[in-house]
Amino acid sequence: MTQQLLVDMDGVLADVYSRILSLEFSETGIQQTMESLNGKTEAEAFVNYLKHVRSKDFFRKAPTMPGSIEGLQYLNEKYKVLVVSSATEYPQSMIEKYEWLKEFYPFISWKQMVFCGVKDSIKGDIMIDDHPKNLDFFSGKKIIFTQPHNFYISKSDYQRVDNWKQLLEIL
Amino acid sequence: MTQQLLVDMDGVLADVYSRILSLEFSETGIQQTMESLNGKTEAEAFVNYLKHVRSKDFFRKAPTMPGSIEGLQYLNEKYKVLVVSSATEYPQSMIEKYEWLKEFYPFISWKQMVFCGVKDSIKGDIMIDDHPKNLDFFSGKKIIFTQPHNFYISKSDYQRVDNWKQLLEIL
Repeated sequence: MTQQLLVDMDGVLADVYSRILSLEFSETGIQQTMESLNGKTEAEAFVNYLKHVRSKDFFRKAPTMPGSIEGLQYLNEKYKVLVVSSATEYPQSMIEKYEWLKEFYPFISWKQMVFCGVKDSIKGDIMIDDHPKNLDFFSGKKIIFTQPHNFYISKSDYQRVDNWKQLLEIL
Repeated sequence: MTQQLLVDMDGVLADVYSRILSLEFSETGIQQTMESLNGKTEAEAFVNYLKHVRSKDFFRKAPTMPGSIEGLQYLNEKYKVLVVSSATEYPQSMIEKYEWLKEFYPFISWKQMVFCGVKDSIKGDIMIDDHPKNLDFFSGKKIIFTQPHNFYISKSDYQRVDNWKQLLEIL
């Protein structure tokens, strides 16, 4: 039977760090590098983190992660893909995330989208996510997608990928 | 361990039929009764069904099902409640459903909300829903909440309740 693959949005499909780095730069003139943020939570890395994620169009105008469009299209033919996003904490993000998916990943139908608060009730065989809080409650195969906040986290049941090229090599 | 209870919105918490009946009456002057709709799908019952559910504030201004506020508050203390709603087909409905839940069921946190396309990937022990398409893919206890479209449907693994009073008697 085709395996069900749970794909996270922020930090896997959406390059949220690039989005915040450019917003911070335009506001403060300070250009932080991705490397300088390794090991910091998002809230530690960005003083205005909450202000940004709550602002209009924050998610709608996020760049896609390099290789993710072709990559997800390929995976969508091989697996039963479900895009699962933590979104109800910032409820205005739901329509933005929906429209963003329809624009950049039009092969993902509304039937394949889940916008939730916590991911521990979503069934799947494989989960791709950047957050241990999501992976740790998952009973299937766990793939951690490298982002600065998880850079130093290592667990025996995680398989780590740094980018979409590496992800496609193992799936 | 506390059982996880999946609670549907439309037709269980939200009285969608009353909402459409009053919209149709104000538009056409024709007042259909609930009884006259028994056995018809929503689309068969209402000529403008899709127009209504796609219109602004359709979900935001739906009445609550009688007894559902106190009922859900009670169940929320006894079970691990997750409100699960098919919403991504009508994406503008997500923020309306979120705001509606916050207004009428403020004890339900954003962590307890799931807005999805299909419910077959949501884990739970008990599901309350008015739609067989959701109940039939569920592996736990299935409770069908009477609505005109499901009036004549009877299956051996469904337990039927006609209202929130009956629902609380069995949970």
